[in-house]
Formats: sequence, structure tokens, C-alpha cells
Amino acid sequence: MDEFIFQNPTRIYFGPSHEAEIGHIVAQHGKRVLLHFGGASAERSGLLPLIRKELSAAGIEFFELGGVKPNPRLSLVYKGIELCRQHKLDLVLAVGGGSVIDSAKAIAAGARYSGDVWDFYTGKTLPETALAVGTVLTIPAAGSESSPGSVITKEEGLLKRAVNADCLFPRFSILNPKRCFTLPRQQVANGITDIMCHLMERYFTNSKPVEFTDRLIEATLKTVISSAPRVLANPNSYDDWAELMWAGTVAHNNLLNTGRVGDWASHDIEHELSAIYDIAHGAGLAIVTPAWMKYTLKHDLARFAQYAVRVWGVEDNFFDPERTALEGIARLEAFWSSIGQKVRLSGLGIGGDRLAEMARKCTDGDTHTVGHFVPLTSKDIEAIYRLAL
Amino acid sequence: MDEFIFQNPTRIYFGPSHEAEIGHIVAQHGKRVLLHFGGASAERSGLLPLIRKELSAAGIEFFELGGVKPNPRLSLVYKGIELCRQHKLDLVLAVGGGSVIDSAKAIAAGARYSGDVWDFYTGKTLPETALAVGTVLTIPAAGSESSPGSVITKEEGLLKRAVNADCLFPRFSILNPKRCFTLPRQQVANGITDIMCHLMERYFTNSKPVEFTDRLIEATLKTVISSAPRVLANPNSYDDWAELMWAGTVAHNNLLNTGRVGDWASHDIEHELSAIYDIAHGAGLAIVTPAWMKYTLKHDLARFAQYAVRVWGVEDNFFDPERTALEGIARLEAFWSSIGQKVRLSGLGIGGDRLAEMARKCTDGDTHTVGHFVPLTSKDIEAIYRLAL
Repeated sequence: MDEFIFQNPTRIYFGPSHEAEIGHIVAQHGKRVLLHFGGASAERSGLLPLIRKELSAAGIEFFELGGVKPNPRLSLVYKGIELCRQHKLDLVLAVGGGSVIDSAKAIAAGARYSGDVWDFYTGKTLPETALAVGTVLTIPAAGSESSPGSVITKEEGLLKRAVNADCLFPRFSILNPKRCFTLPRQQVANGITDIMCHLMERYFTNSKPVEFTDRLIEATLKTVISSAPRVLANPNSYDDWAELMWAGTVAHNNLLNTGRVGDWASHDIEHELSAIYDIAHGAGLAIVTPAWMKYTLKHDLARFAQYAVRVWGVEDNFFDPERTALEGIARLEAFWSSIGQKVRLSGLGIGGDRLAEMARKCTDGDTHTVGHFVPLTSKDIEAIYRLAL
Repeated sequence: MDEFIFQNPTRIYFGPSHEAEIGHIVAQHGKRVLLHFGGASAERSGLLPLIRKELSAAGIEFFELGGVKPNPRLSLVYKGIELCRQHKLDLVLAVGGGSVIDSAKAIAAGARYSGDVWDFYTGKTLPETALAVGTVLTIPAAGSESSPGSVITKEEGLLKRAVNADCLFPRFSILNPKRCFTLPRQQVANGITDIMCHLMERYFTNSKPVEFTDRLIEATLKTVISSAPRVLANPNSYDDWAELMWAGTVAHNNLLNTGRVGDWASHDIEHELSAIYDIAHGAGLAIVTPAWMKYTLKHDLARFAQYAVRVWGVEDNFFDPERTALEGIARLEAFWSSIGQKVRLSGLGIGGDRLAEMARKCTDGDTHTVGHFVPLTSKDIEAIYRLAL
């Protein structure tokens, strides 16, 4: 196990009753709020009207900025920063999924920074302070509700980049599984895929031994694999949504990478796909991840075999671990197909014409490798895209 | 899954390198410190001398209070409170195991309270504020290094009572698995037993469904069961101690009881044993827990069968879940025996003469029941003690 420092300060309010306390909860962290959200669904569901009412009742002044899109854009972040400065706001309240939360974090950090917020995403510098961020989560997926990360897309050049910093942990997150009942089916499938990838990115590591966190990750994956088909079959099942939603948060709150270094190549390789083709992150991951697995398999067959046996219940072929490992990948592809994902680029109508371009962008023009389990060059990444065709 | 609020603010520094940074770490939370510890082992190992040196180098003024015993005493807590007030201290630094940390928490809360600190332990009131607490953990066992709980024994009447409050979470805890290499074998066995019981107290619940946290608890139990014999066989194995130490913290940091109500009867029933006979808490739990299981088995056979199959690898007897369940309890007893625990009162030379007295004390003179899975009266508790003879 590697040395580590772990702290996750986010306060989680889980269950249906907490939304009505949001005025009181927000008031503990701020008095002047930017209410940040996406499209019409949070309006239609009554969630935004409820929040407005409760904020007003608690005497909290708030300004609104809607319109966050999937793969949230830098231009809207700039608008949010401007609003926060203009009105001297002290808390950004994100109502929505990972895109809204990531956008809120960018605004919160940018509002306290004299330079260009994009500096944080290019690695020029790290945010050391930010406005308070609170979230009301509406879809289990990104894990941003209890993570220190944010991913933003710069329209110019279609650059999708991430930052991680302690000051970006939300102060609180309100999770009500009932809010998931009306989610569109494809969004649910993308969220499930994203959660599973957060777990698998952490699972494939060179740190050893890491028995405890291996087992915790497997436990979380098994929970997702078990509850996912049930929420798709019965979208009103509170119990199954509750399992999935809490698993989605724990999957990405840093506990499961204590003492180990995750890989994260698949996330980076996918980011180029969704930046160029504007597909959903989860949809891209369902295509990239199995290809990445096939490409890196032989780096640590034992780990892939353990994954196949413990997560997917594959019967171990003791004499041929590669067969065991490959069966694990096949089960993963079959599972994702069963929840409606495409597991090849062709399934989304994406051809092979821009693979080399994406691979170069992913390594910032061959200036670095990608991933920790197997450090990948642009040639490796192009080969992985090709395996995914 | 039940509704819940979850937050654990403790910052964990895990690995051998952090002890040398303790001056810097402490300085973030306090300037005037009570250095609190137990006996001679932390002196002999060089840990206390190192801490004194680093605190001084960081310009931190500190006063010392050693002498904490297992089942930490209220009288020493009073002394600590007095020292904190006299010297206007702002942080209590606990160096040791659960007893030292629990004592430090009591001092920290008592120093900020105008009444008698024992009020917190009788339930008369709850602490709302406390001095900062930091810990340097030397044994994986109590989980107090990242919990909001404290257990103190009042000498008069041999009353052992617990309190839980958010202000008692340590601000930071430093965990160095190397510090465990020289622990006495019986203390290690008691720590292992305590950790397992923290997990099993959470496991046996009436909340349902709780698939995710069931699986997380099972994962943690399996890690403890796998690493425990290895640290006993090879006390210098850093890797195995690391697994056990981190599992011991996660076992009791409240994550594993999110959305579920634990039982905790075995802990209460054991507290009466260790209060009267002054045995170690872990030693008492190894005796009480199997008896409690046999007594409550039929309340939820399916849960006991799942525990047997998933934790102990018992082959499920689908036609007779009670046989499956009983085999799980038998494996638990065999495991504890294998690490040197006695699993009957007679093994510690304790007879049946004070069973009724302990059962009455445990229910505060029949004024309440004990435990949530099956609420137990003093008659039930006496029967459990009898099963344990």
C-alpha cells in the first residue's frame, strides 16, 4: 500500500427529506448565492421552484445562471464568475448532475482568482481558494458531488481538461434518490457506465499489495452491476436508486484510491472523443474502456483475472489466466450492451478518420504519456481507438 | 436504505513519513498542546521523544499527561481538563490506542464545558464544542482515530459509558503501520477482535435493503480475516499491518453504517464485563459476540446465512439456512480461538455469580432495552452471559 493523505470534508444529506431543509443548510455556508443549473428538467420536476422558495424563506439572496450543457463550457463559466464578482456572491449552489457541479466548481475557483480560470485546467497553477460550493444531485454518475475534481471544455480547440484541488470539495451535497425516477434511460445508462469506470480506473493499478481497497472497489462494482438493471426495469424503485446513488458517490470520493495510484487513461482517451464528437462521457467510456483493457491485458494478467472472477463471477481458469481475464472483459461488454450502450465506435457512427488527431491531442502533441497502469504514447492510444472501431 | 447524514472531517496521514511532519501538522490546529499518552511503550519505541522534538522545533508549547490505562478512567480525564484550563491549551494530542484517544476526547470536551464532563456519558447533555484533538495511532483496534465516539470508565460504581458527538472527531490522525511491529501479541488479538466487532455490530441490522453497505462491511471483514493471521505470524510485515490498520479505521469511521442502524448490544454487554473484571474490551467481545449471535440467530436467519457464506466462505445449505448460519458462527469462534482468544467466560476464569448483576447494570436497572437488531431486556442479557459461560 502506498503512503497517502485522505480527507473528504463534504457533508452528505441522503434521502428525500433534506431538500426541504436546503435554506437552513445553505445558510451555514453562505448568504449570497449563485443558483446554477442546466436545462428545463429541474424546473419541470419542481426541484428548482422548491429550492427558490426555501432559499427565499431562509433570507438568502440569490442570482440564477442556467444553461449548463453536458461537457460544460468555459464560456458559461466566465459568465458565472462575472455574476459572482458583480453581486459579491459567496456560494455557488449546483442543481443537477456532474456537468452543472463541475461548472459550479470552476466558477467558485475562478471568482477568487485574478487570472484566467482556464489556467487551472492547463496545469499552469492550482486553485488554493474558492467560493463555497453546495450541490443538489439529480443523477448518479460523475461523483463530482463529493470529489475535488472538475472537468471543463474550452470551445476554442475543443479542449476538455480536468483539475483537482482540495478547495473544490463541495461543502455539502443533497442526494434524493426520488429525483432519479424521471431520468431519461440513456442518461441513466451513461451514469452507470461512468460510475463503473471511476471504479475500474482505480482498480487497475501497479501499487501492491492493495487487498483492502481492491475488495472495497469490487464491493462497489458488484452493487452497481446488481442495482443498474433494476433501476432500468423499474425507474420508480427507490431502494435500487438509493444503492446506485450512494455507490456512485463513494466510487469517486477518493476513499477507494487510498494507498494506490489509479490509471485514468480511459478517461483521458474518452475526453478527446466527447470533445470532438460531443457524445456523452459515459457513452464514450463504454467504447474506450474495453479496448483499453484488451490493449493492456498482458501487463498484469493476474489483476485482470481477479477482476473477472471477483466482480463478474467468472469461473477461474487456473491454467490459463488470460482466458479468465478475457471472459471478464466479455462480460463487461455484454453488461454494457444489455443496458443499451454501444461498445464500438461504429455503433455511434464514428469512423477512423480522426484517430491519429485525437491520440495526438490526448498527449498534448506527444509531450507526455497517458495513464499510470501502462503509460501510453499517442501510438498506443491510436491503437486503442482502432481496437474500438 | 434509511435516510442519513454523513460527514467525516478527520484528515488521515497514512504511512511512515508523516510522523516527522507532526510539528507542522499540529500547528495548523493549535499552538498550546496537551500531550496525552499511556505507559512506557511509546517512550521506549522512540515515538514520544520524536514527537517532543518535532513539537519543540515547530515552536509549539506542550504539557504532558501520561498514565492512561485500558478502560480509561474518569479521574485522569479530570486531571487533563484541569491542565488544559490552567495552561490555556487548545489541542489535545493523543499518542497511543483507543483508550488514550477516548481519554483525550473526554478532556477536550470537558475543558470547554462548565459542568461535570461525566454528564456527557450519562446522556444528561451532549458536547457541542471541544478543544481540537489530534492522534498518533499505535494500534489498529478501537477506530477512535476517525470516529466521533469516546468510552470512559467511572471508578465509582465501575460504570463504563460512551458518548458520540461531531465535535469529538479528531482533526487529524497519523497512522504509521511500522509502529505496530512491536505490539504484544495479546493486544494485537484484542485489536483484531474489536475491529471485527465494529463491523459485525453494523452488519446485523433491521434496515433493508442495504446491499451496498453489506458488501462494504463484508469486504472489510474479509480483509481483516486475511491480514490478521499474517501480522501474528510475521509482526514485521508492513504490508499486512497497513491493510489491517486502514481497515480498522474505515471499520469505525461511520461510512459503513450509512443508511442502516447497527445493533451494538454486544458492545454494551461487554462493557459490563470489562468494567467489573477489568479485562480487555477485545477479549470480552470474543466471548460475548458468539453468544449474542446464537441468542438472536432466528430473528433473521437469512442475514446470518449471508454473513456465513460471504464472509467465511461457508457453502450455503439452501434447504437449511440455520445450518449455514450456525456454521458461520462456528467459523468465527474457530478464527478467534486461532488468534489466541478465549471464546467462553470460563476461559478467563469468570464464573456465573455476577451475571444477573451485570445484566441489570447493562439496562441501567431495567430502565431500557439494549441493542437494535433485537432489543434485549436484562433477562435476555443474562441468558446471553449464560450461553457464554
